[in-house]
Amino acid sequence: MTAELLDKAAAGPIDRSAALRAVDEFAATAMLLIAVVGSGIMAERLSGGNAGLALLANALATGGALIALILAFGPRSGAHMNPVVTVCAAFRGDLAWNRVPYYLVAQVAGAIAGVWLAHLMFELPVLQFSQHARTGPGQWLAEAVATFGLLAVILGCQAYRDGTTAYAVAAYITGAYWFTVSTSFANPAVTLARSFSDTFAGIRPADVAGFVVAQAIGAALAMALMRRR
Amino acid sequence: MTAELLDKAAAGPIDRSAALRAVDEFAATAMLLIAVVGSGIMAERLSGGNAGLALLANALATGGALIALILAFGPRSGAHMNPVVTVCAAFRGDLAWNRVPYYLVAQVAGAIAGVWLAHLMFELPVLQFSQHARTGPGQWLAEAVATFGLLAVILGCQAYRDGTTAYAVAAYITGAYWFTVSTSFANPAVTLARSFSDTFAGIRPADVAGFVVAQAIGAALAMALMRRR
Amino acid sequence: MTAELLDKAAAGPIDRSAALRAVDEFAATAMLLIAVVGSGIMAERLSGGNAGLALLANALATGGALIALILAFGPRSGAHMNPVVTVCAAFRGDLAWNRVPYYLVAQVAGAIAGVWLAHLMFELPVLQFSQHARTGPGQWLAEAVATFGLLAVILGCQAYRDGTTAYAVAAYITGAYWFTVSTSFANPAVTLARSFSDTFAGIRPADVAGFVVAQAIGAALAMALMRRR
Amino acid sequence: MTAELLDKAAAGPIDRSAALRAVDEFAATAMLLIAVVGSGIMAERLSGGNAGLALLANALATGGALIALILAFGPRSGAHMNPVVTVCAAFRGDLAWNRVPYYLVAQVAGAIAGVWLAHLMFELPVLQFSQHARTGPGQWLAEAVATFGLLAVILGCQAYRDGTTAYAVAAYITGAYWFTVSTSFANPAVTLARSFSDTFAGIRPADVAGFVVAQAIGAALAMALMRRR
Repeated sequence: MTAELLDKAAAGPIDRSAALRAVDEFAATAMLLIAVVGSGIMAERLSGGNAGLALLANALATGGALIALILAFGPRSGAHMNPVVTVCAAFRGDLAWNRVPYYLVAQVAGAIAGVWLAHLMFELPVLQFSQHARTGPGQWLAEAVATFGLLAVILGCQAYRDGTTAYAVAAYITGAYWFTVSTSFANPAVTLARSFSDTFAGIRPADVAGFVVAQAIGAALAMALMRRR
Repeated sequence: MTAELLDKAAAGPIDRSAALRAVDEFAATAMLLIAVVGSGIMAERLSGGNAGLALLANALATGGALIALILAFGPRSGAHMNPVVTVCAAFRGDLAWNRVPYYLVAQVAGAIAGVWLAHLMFELPVLQFSQHARTGPGQWLAEAVATFGLLAVILGCQAYRDGTTAYAVAAYITGAYWFTVSTSFANPAVTLARSFSDTFAGIRPADVAGFVVAQAIGAALAMALMRRR
Repeated sequence: MTAELLDKAAAGPIDRSAALRAVDEFAATAMLLIAVVGSGIMAERLSGGNAGLALLANALATGGALIALILAFGPRSGAHMNPVVTVCAAFRGDLAWNRVPYYLVAQVAGAIAGVWLAHLMFELPVLQFSQHARTGPGQWLAEAVATFGLLAVILGCQAYRDGTTAYAVAAYITGAYWFTVSTSFANPAVTLARSFSDTFAGIRPADVAGFVVAQAIGAALAMALMRRR
Repeated sequence: MTAELLDKAAAGPIDRSAALRAVDEFAATAMLLIAVVGSGIMAERLSGGNAGLALLANALATGGALIALILAFGPRSGAHMNPVVTVCAAFRGDLAWNRVPYYLVAQVAGAIAGVWLAHLMFELPVLQFSQHARTGPGQWLAEAVATFGLLAVILGCQAYRDGTTAYAVAAYITGAYWFTVSTSFANPAVTLARSFSDTFAGIRPADVAGFVVAQAIGAALAMALMRRR
């Protein structure tokens, strides 16, 4: 759901500077990464070596966080938490281009801060780099499919009142953790930040670029399919 | 939710050709099959031989995808993704009969495309045929019950505003994966497409016809029970 | 949500005889028991002896079915599926007392029919009697607590528009399968019907009466707490 | 959602004394602790030593209870069930300060009553004290993060109609059980009451104070971020 639509949806007039929105994006994205990375660590610790159980917990925890964060921060900043969503909103005219840099910086900084807070909570070294290889055509196709689906869901849900996007996105991502071989990163800020964590959710820094390119392609396809008509 | 009702529910007037709707049905059904087949493959790989854990992941991933896809594509094509739903809508006068062929072709083609995309993502041979036997009176009764329930849920939810059908159908199917011995295919296009995958979600080509007949009987019973009165 | 309120909530005027409502209650309750008993059988078969995994599947499948059934049949019969809910509605003046017998007969008959259909699907002997002992003060307290909570949730949710009750009841029961030592039957028709199944969900016929008394006490306490004021 | 807002949201005028609201808070908080402690006991019994499966059941059961309880008791007392939420509502002017003591007493008494009822149901000694150590900087940071997130979600969701808070809070807590190393108590009354249970959900009495201080800090940060502007 885009920020402009949400402004109208929220009760009463809201006039808030780009900086304040960026603070909201920072906080929301940080909480999202705490959820993704923290639940991955906890899941790996508790699942007794069963990767299926670990992914199930990781997927449900991420979905739970997404419902809550999109509902709570949606009326404030739009709760994009994802550069692809922000750029897509700008292309569609739902977000002014001069606000885009604020969003992107807040998302990347928030994502990395969230990863580091998760490490602090679980008493792990704060600064880490993942050694988890995630590369190859299957992975790239998976990220393109995952991001295509995510953007299609977000754009399709603009027909509804506020709130629906939260449930749709959370349900989609919870499922997509399972139905894409890459476990659906579908978000460049999340992808970059996860390279800073050598835990369950990590991705090798060298593999980030391939994921981001695939995500951009998937998003472009979704915008083509779901254009206003 | 039928396409005509959804047109009225969506904000503003929508006039869209049958061809455009068919593209939406194609994309939605392809994503659905990616979810069903992809999560089945992932679940089997990660669950360490525990079929219960695998089915739990498969059911939750399918449910998550259904919420997202019905919400996102409902206002566009109705998000039937199921020939039984399309034919039922035509019988009830909610969809013009001359649009039915577009829907059926799009659903079947989309379903098969989704299966093949799932195979590509997981780096499996694209063209496969299932060897998973699913036949016999228990299986057929299960498919009749599953489809009866699915259609009863869809028809019963026409009393609500847009969106409710998505949650109801997803919740129903997530449950029905567990409470029917056939794991609830309940969809001829899905059944046919799953015969093209020799993975967790597959069905032997020879067993498709029996499932489809049972599904048609279940749907007819639901239409009788839930007729307008 | 009571039948009278639901009539007003549904689009357009509905005038439907007690007999037609009873058919809806029969179908809804049958589907509910298929879900409870069927998912119990499937869960036991697939969970490799892990009772926790089996109960998790059973709880999620029951919750999924409850969302779908209450949404779909709520605008038709109220989707009580539970004699305690029906009698409570009559006491509160939301349902005419002369309709109560129709509801109770439909619920009990539907529940037993559902159990038998589950047995047929899973190719088990149709007529069975459970040998699963469920008795003693802990179990009775659990059923009183479970039914107190269920009725409190149903009565509390009358403040909302149609649909909310479905999500609240399903979420409650999914949780209560885990947080009451009896796994929350909370329904005399369900309790009786489950005595006809010597599977995961069964209860010894001799133990039914104790459960029903405890359920009635819990319901009375909830009505006292949640009375209009 | 605060009590005052909920009064306006509920159908018709409601005038109810502080004492009646306190009874509602008592009942809701007792049911919440039955859910948290009861599902923990059941999960430990059934999960065959797999802590991941136990936490998954515990998290889903708590989430289910939260949806139901916040929906049902929200229109009556606000369904705070949490001293931090009550004090925050008073600071924001959404609850009169002279009502705060009633709420706090009801929450603490209800929480302890719920723990004892759970013990009675599971036929355990009623009076127990936990020996589960939960202390140290990682745990305290986790509680600050957990409570920050919880309050941010509650305050952010005041932009929506009644009901949304229930889904958001439940989804958040279900996730936060996994993504915080402390499993997200995020509630002083719950923390105190869980010190009375030497089961899965327990916390050593000596560790309660550290958790409550961390929770207060997290809540204050959320109020700063989410202030009206």
